[in-house]
Formats: sequence, C-alpha cells, structure tokens
Amino acid sequence: MAEETSATDPVHIPLIEADRPSSKLAEFSANEPLELDAGTELAPWQIAYETYGEMNAEKTNAVLVCHALTGDQYVASSNPITGKPGWWTRMVGPGRPIDTDRYFVICANVLGGCLGTTGPATTNPATDAPYGLKMPVVTIRDMVRAQARLIDRLGIDTLFAVVGGSMGGMQVLQWAASYPERVFAAVPIAAGARHSSQNIAFHEVGRQAIMADPDWCGGAYIAAGKRPTKGLSVARMAAHITYMSDESLHQKFGRNLQDRDDLTFGFDADFQIESYLRHQGMTFVDRFDANSYLYVTRAMDYFDLAAEFGSLPAAFKDSKTRFCVMSFTSDWLFPTSESRAVVKALNAAAANVSFVEIDSDRGHDAFLLDVPEMFSTIRGFITGAANARGIPAPGGSD
Amino acid sequence: MAEETSATDPVHIPLIEADRPSSKLAEFSANEPLELDAGTELAPWQIAYETYGEMNAEKTNAVLVCHALTGDQYVASSNPITGKPGWWTRMVGPGRPIDTDRYFVICANVLGGCLGTTGPATTNPATDAPYGLKMPVVTIRDMVRAQARLIDRLGIDTLFAVVGGSMGGMQVLQWAASYPERVFAAVPIAAGARHSSQNIAFHEVGRQAIMADPDWCGGAYIAAGKRPTKGLSVARMAAHITYMSDESLHQKFGRNLQDRDDLTFGFDADFQIESYLRHQGMTFVDRFDANSYLYVTRAMDYFDLAAEFGSLPAAFKDSKTRFCVMSFTSDWLFPTSESRAVVKALNAAAANVSFVEIDSDRGHDAFLLDVPEMFSTIRGFITGAANARGIPAPGGSD
Repeated sequence: MAEETSATDPVHIPLIEADRPSSKLAEFSANEPLELDAGTELAPWQIAYETYGEMNAEKTNAVLVCHALTGDQYVASSNPITGKPGWWTRMVGPGRPIDTDRYFVICANVLGGCLGTTGPATTNPATDAPYGLKMPVVTIRDMVRAQARLIDRLGIDTLFAVVGGSMGGMQVLQWAASYPERVFAAVPIAAGARHSSQNIAFHEVGRQAIMADPDWCGGAYIAAGKRPTKGLSVARMAAHITYMSDESLHQKFGRNLQDRDDLTFGFDADFQIESYLRHQGMTFVDRFDANSYLYVTRAMDYFDLAAEFGSLPAAFKDSKTRFCVMSFTSDWLFPTSESRAVVKALNAAAANVSFVEIDSDRGHDAFLLDVPEMFSTIRGFITGAANARGIPAPGGSD
Repeated sequence: MAEETSATDPVHIPLIEADRPSSKLAEFSANEPLELDAGTELAPWQIAYETYGEMNAEKTNAVLVCHALTGDQYVASSNPITGKPGWWTRMVGPGRPIDTDRYFVICANVLGGCLGTTGPATTNPATDAPYGLKMPVVTIRDMVRAQARLIDRLGIDTLFAVVGGSMGGMQVLQWAASYPERVFAAVPIAAGARHSSQNIAFHEVGRQAIMADPDWCGGAYIAAGKRPTKGLSVARMAAHITYMSDESLHQKFGRNLQDRDDLTFGFDADFQIESYLRHQGMTFVDRFDANSYLYVTRAMDYFDLAAEFGSLPAAFKDSKTRFCVMSFTSDWLFPTSESRAVVKALNAAAANVSFVEIDSDRGHDAFLLDVPEMFSTIRGFITGAANARGIPAPGGSD
C-alpha cells in the first residue's frame, strides 16, 4: 500500500492477509461457523465486501453483485492492489443500469478467494500457518451461504436483486434456488446451471499446470516463501482463450506480428496473440493466489443445480423471483444452450422469466465489455422490477 | 525393444536416436543439405518412413499420407514403440479407401518429429550433442521439401495423391501449392490454409507449459538426463480438449464421476473427463519428445499459404490437381469456414475441386475416427481419380 508503483511495475498480493488492503469486513467468530457442503465447518471466518450507494430505511433496495472466477469485490471502485478501476463501472454507478443513486449495491469477495474473504491463504487457526490444501473444498452454494450470512448481518431480509456474469451468474442461480424468498429479481448472465464437461476439462488443465509447478510445493508455497507463478500463468493463458471468441481473436490479433516485420524462426512471441496471452498470464499472477485458483475453479466444476435438487425445474419450484436470463451468441464457454436450459426449467416451474440472447462477437467476456444491448436490457429489467418493488426513483421520477 | 511391456506399462521413446526402432530411412549426407525457410540448411539429415503396397512399374500409383501434429509414419502398421495399431487402418490397407492392393502408400515422419526423421533430439554434428533448440525452426514447407526429397529418391515423378488431416492437410495444401505438377490428386481433411489466432493461442499455451517445466532445462534436457514430462502432459491436455467437440465430451463423459458415487471435495480426478485428460497427458509423454512438440506446433503456427503466395488463389494458380476438400461440422479447431476459404480460392484459381462438409459431432478428431461418410467420400474420389490416372484396379475391375 505504501509502495509506489507505476503501471508497469509488477504488483503483488501480500501473501499475509493482515498486510493486504482491507475492504469492509464481516467477521464471524469461532462460535459462528459457516456450514460447508464438504460436511465440515469453517470457523472463524470472514467475508470482505464493498458497498456503493445508500441502503433505504426499509432495506428494500439492496443489490448483490456476484463476481466471476478472477473477479473481486471492487465492482465500481478502484482495486487497491492493481490500482485499476472497478471491473463493472459501466454497469454499476450513479446513473448506470444498476444505479447507485437508487440502489444499495453490495459486492463481496467469494469464499475461497484471495482478497480478504477466507480462502486457502488465510491462516488456519489449527496450525497458525496458511490453510493451503487444508482449507475444505468449497462450492458455489457455500459461497452463497457466506453471502447470505453477510446479508443477515447487514439486516437485509430480501435482496432487491442478485446480478452476476459467468461464475457470478452461477451464484445468482444458486441464490434463487436456495433462498427464493430472499431474492426479488435475479439476473444470471453468460452462465448455466451446471459446469459442462468441456468447462471442467479446461479447469483441470489449469489446475494441473499449477500443481505441476515445483514452486507450488504441494500447496504450501507461502510457508516455503515461493509462488507457483509459471504454473498459474499457464493456467490463466489457457482460461483466457476460452473467454474470447475465435472471431474476436481474429479481429483483434489475426496473424499480426508483434513489433516486427518478419517471423523470427524462434520461440519468442512472434505473434501479437502470443504476446497478449503471455501478458495476461504474467499480470494475473501479480493479483491472484494460485491455491485460490484451484479452489474457485473446483467450486465451479462442482456446480450442478439439477443434481442438487433432483431436477432443474425442482430447483426453481414455486419461485416468485423475477428472472432476466442473458447469453451472448459468440460465448462458447457458456453457450446460449446452457441459458436456454435454465429458461426452460424456469418455464416448467412457472417462474417469471425473460430471456435475451445478445448478438455479440466478443465471446464469454462480452458481459464485462461495452455491449450497449446488455446495458439497456438490464436497465429496463431492473428499473421495471424496482418500480414493482416500490423503490423510489432518484429525483422522484424514472 | 527387447523389453516386455504390457498395455499398462509406460513406454518411453529412447532419447538416443540410435536406440530407437527404425523405419525405412532415407539418409542425406553433408553434401545433400535440406534448404530451410529459416534461411539456413540442415545437413546431414534423414527422413524415416513406412511404405505399404507395391509401386507399379510406371511409378504412377504412389499415395503420400501426411500425418498430424502427434502422428507418425505408422499409418497402417503397428507402432513399435507403443505397440498400438497404425493410426489410420480404417483408411489405409487392403480393400480400404486408400487401397494398398492398388496403391503404393508412403508415410514419413515429419521434419522436426521424434520418430526417426531429423528433429531436435537428433545429434547435432557441430556439437555431438542433441540439437535441442539449436535445431533451426522448421515450417510446413520445410516438411514438404523433405518429403519431396524422399519422393525424388524413390524415383517418383508425380504422386498420384497426397492425403492428410489436420497438420497433414496443411502439408497436402503445401504440396499442391509448391509442387502442383507433382500432385495428381489432393485430399486435405479438417485443415486450413493458415493457422488461426485461436489455434496459435492454444499452441502457445502448450509451449509455455513445456518451457515452464524446470526439467525442460532450456531445451537441453536430454544432456541433463531429464524430461519435462509434467509440462508436456499439460500441453497435451490443453490440446486434447480442442480435438473434441463440446457435444462429444458431453456424450462421452458428461459430468459422470470416476469410479465413485460422490464428489470427494478434493483435487483428485472426481470427474471422468479429468481422469481421461490426465491419462491422455501421461501416456503422451511416453511417446513424444517435448522439443519436437515445440517445433511441430511452431511449424503449424507459421503456416499461411496466402502470405507465402501473396494471396490464396495465387497459391493454386493454374493448378491441374484434383482436390477433395473435407471438413466436419463440429470441428471448432479447423472449422468449415477455413476449408471454405480454401475452396473459394481453388474456385477462383479455376481448379478442379469438390468440397464435402461431413455431419459429425466428434469434433476435429473425426478424421481419425469411424466416420463412414468420410470413408465413402474418399473412396469415391480416390477411385475416380485413379481411373482417370489409368491406375489398374485390383482384380482388373472397379
């Protein structure tokens, strides 16, 4: 925090939790354990979060934004580690579709993460060393349980809306399934009700890359004073390809060479796409913990609402939540078919659902990018729901 | 070779070339250098190959089969290292579409490979140590140049056909472009005239995984008595996902668990897809050299016929070759659009071309699998071309 960094200096997550820049923290004592799907409990534990806007007196205007695999709680404010702006400032802020002049927005670092919420880098009270692989494997349901405990502590009975893309969308669906009475409106974007075989496969490659790095040290790299940066970088590179469409890669990079006129006949980054991927890998290791990557990918792999409830319609039985399900035409990681399966189940459960497939060539990452149709659709849906919920519009109009 | 191995024993490529099981070899002395696109020469050098069937007196019935990235010359006979049957026995053999009762079939290990043809594990005459990264980077055109030298040595003027899938299809297209007068018929399958940005990206991930492995030793692992098996395994796992379609992964594995009834809440292979991928990675390192993987992927990345000739139609100008271009509906690594671009260029060049997109849910690997429409199409095309070429049918009919 006190160090000066330029845009080109590497920035490292302080591995010792106490040294990290702190968000707001909800701390739960040894007497307030978090029940986990693994059949065990976590205690003490904590959840780090940011808020934007003001909660109204009736506590009816809270919007929970759920972040994706490598996201964080800094949805609409600068990340103190990277110095970069919030990751969804186009969506969340004054006058934005999720309007902080009207709504009280909460975004929490997920359980298993590395930005303040309990995760594998957290000190294990049983050993006084970082948990590492002694941290129980967590699930999307566990992440949502932790968020529900935070919402309890904030005194919020029913969230006005839960919104998120990718793994954030999984959390939205889990919220709607686990706590239907606490979710007025739900917006799962570029997600699905399960992780597909191909998705699991890509995650497994990433995990194997991390665990193949000798500096991973069986998960105990913090105690060893090491970091499996090479393995984590390869994992990020592989994953990053899946976030973009073939078309967007072609448009952005094609076969363009990197700062040269000819091929070098070597193994340096001849092509811009190589240089871009290497950069993605190298910068990622500065802001993300390798064990967290293992845990959070595992949580996604385990996600399967139909298995949890017996069937997907059963997951949404008698739901009164209003859903706005959204997918992108060029997203091959969570293709439209996965969203359609959710919509079909919601229809079978007689839920209130609208579905929008947005035409975009940007692939899975479209939900993070400047896609006007996404913003206008969400603005319309959220505003309609807020009016139905009786949340006053800013300035008294809408 | 003398060791007994069972199907479950690991089999290792002998790293010292002289210890490897030998195919037929065409050896070229220090006075017979191979010119390379890198602007240098390779000498001495050699190319290892297998043949099937008999060359006719006129030498008009030779079919060159070109193998893919991790393929080898054992197209229709057992691989002496793995003990497995040839990789395309459904396509090549007596009575098969490429009928060894009618044609003389040649299949050579590619330049830069690791099964007898000169590659990075070959002894560098300048140092008496394996080339490692001192081997010049080679291209698809260099591979084809080497094959042309082999064909010269066999006394063959014109190949009746050149056939191959994936990187083999790239070689087919390069043959037709570089030596149009020497190719009567060409069958590029599941290929394209360039490597796309996404394809380069996946290869770069694989290379970074290999080079991140400390046992890679900067490429000099043979001298160090090591092998970067973990890195190579991760590279193979990542690549293997791209060879299958989302649909085929879903059908074959879905979210099925591996030999267990419940999730283990750990990082072992819970899902069948994980176990399958790990197996693919582990068995691959027993039969493939890590530096060869770097070189051969690089050759594919560099492939771009339009760049070489100024435009794609220019690559096929005045071609008299008969083409049968084939793609598969679910192949996302070399999608039909890449084949269509080739066909469009062939049409613009007024070449003789037929194009078949085969309906298959098996992804890129379909060309290696039991896809009846592929066999019947190639049988029909090859038979028609053979009749036009005046190659007698076996038994005097057909």
